[in-house]
Amino acid sequence: MQHVRFRDPAGAVRTGEWTDEGPAFAGHTYDVDDVDVLPPTTPSKVVCVGLNYADHAEESGMEVPDRPLLFLKPPNALAGHGDSVRLPAGKERVDWEAELGVVIGEQCRHVDEADAMDVVRGYTCVNDISNRDDQEVEQNWVRGKAFDGAAPMGPTVATPDEVPDDAGISLRVNGETKQESSRSEFIFSVPELVAEITTYMTLEPGDVISTGTPAGVGALSPGDRVEVDVEGIPTLEHTVAE
Amino acid sequence: MQHVRFRDPAGAVRTGEWTDEGPAFAGHTYDVDDVDVLPPTTPSKVVCVGLNYADHAEESGMEVPDRPLLFLKPPNALAGHGDSVRLPAGKERVDWEAELGVVIGEQCRHVDEADAMDVVRGYTCVNDISNRDDQEVEQNWVRGKAFDGAAPMGPTVATPDEVPDDAGISLRVNGETKQESSRSEFIFSVPELVAEITTYMTLEPGDVISTGTPAGVGALSPGDRVEVDVEGIPTLEHTVAE
Repeated sequence: MQHVRFRDPAGAVRTGEWTDEGPAFAGHTYDVDDVDVLPPTTPSKVVCVGLNYADHAEESGMEVPDRPLLFLKPPNALAGHGDSVRLPAGKERVDWEAELGVVIGEQCRHVDEADAMDVVRGYTCVNDISNRDDQEVEQNWVRGKAFDGAAPMGPTVATPDEVPDDAGISLRVNGETKQESSRSEFIFSVPELVAEITTYMTLEPGDVISTGTPAGVGALSPGDRVEVDVEGIPTLEHTVAE
Repeated sequence: MQHVRFRDPAGAVRTGEWTDEGPAFAGHTYDVDDVDVLPPTTPSKVVCVGLNYADHAEESGMEVPDRPLLFLKPPNALAGHGDSVRLPAGKERVDWEAELGVVIGEQCRHVDEADAMDVVRGYTCVNDISNRDDQEVEQNWVRGKAFDGAAPMGPTVATPDEVPDDAGISLRVNGETKQESSRSEFIFSVPELVAEITTYMTLEPGDVISTGTPAGVGALSPGDRVEVDVEGIPTLEHTVAE
């Protein structure tokens, strides 16, 4: 099952099903071009994981951490499927980073690894857009990672049964494959991440854990068309504003 | 004028006025002991500033930055006046940090310094509680600064006219003064902070900028009673859970 949030032609925000024919709500199926697909969840926070694939840690010249490297994206960072994202002005290098997003289904704290999947509502595709100019010179990655539009996600929340444990994760820019890996390459699993994060903080329904990116990051340019593919979830597409 | 949010004895959430007799709403004044004082705002994010006083930078062994050091506290970090905050378990050192909180009044982006006060609704008291055990070993201060209860704030939002430019800022633990400084010691002013933050991200109504702490930080212990005083705002009080 694929859940989608969208604004219908009358302006109403709907949570419906993503079908092969288009977003559907209350017995009506819309042409995807007639609606505004919204981020599929309204998180109070996105908790992101850095360096969760050995190959990306290596390309970044960083060591694989002994516990998850965490950072935060606030709600202003969200963008949706089909959106045109404006990059921070005057930066040399703003990178793509394809990620699997874990969408939380219930308020939770102190979750054991063994019970972690009980609080997972499903999965979505995320592009963890990263402004390296600032990220490389600041203690906390706020200018680097928390700017407006830094977290395009969607188009759906896929229920857990849709996304296999070894789901492929890939990213294309203007049709050319730049990243290609699998969830089986994670250093820290989804249950390990849920357990570690909820040791410190409450996760709310709709919150997202973005699970890190594999090797192959690179710089976005104005006009680029980005596609993020996670097996079992429809393709997330967005453009970069000119 | 002092605005307060509270839950009345019937459970209704009210935004009223903080008077000398107690919180008031719709012509009725409550005894403060009969209501639950809530955080005075419901931010989508708290944008915090590190090292905004030269004396605290010095006690921390860090250099004064050439632009604001930023970090984030998500909504789960909030606590209110009169609350008992539970510190993260098993840590050696979790510190108090008295701060002036700036409460944003309207959605804004790319705000010029000259116009910054137009988007400020008012001020509140913040304790930026900091788990040094983790803060000192992580890239981004998430375990260190974003845990549940890490941002007690309140008790009111004071309108800007209530808080002078050289407002005193102090903190007492169990009645003993630990921090004592003034807003006039800021390295980056409120307008400079608003301008810098909104270069990168949209601020929403209710969002808070916490403006950094002066020298005198130290470790909290279970059972402590903390008071944060900013001139022009009623005293924020909270305890530390046993």
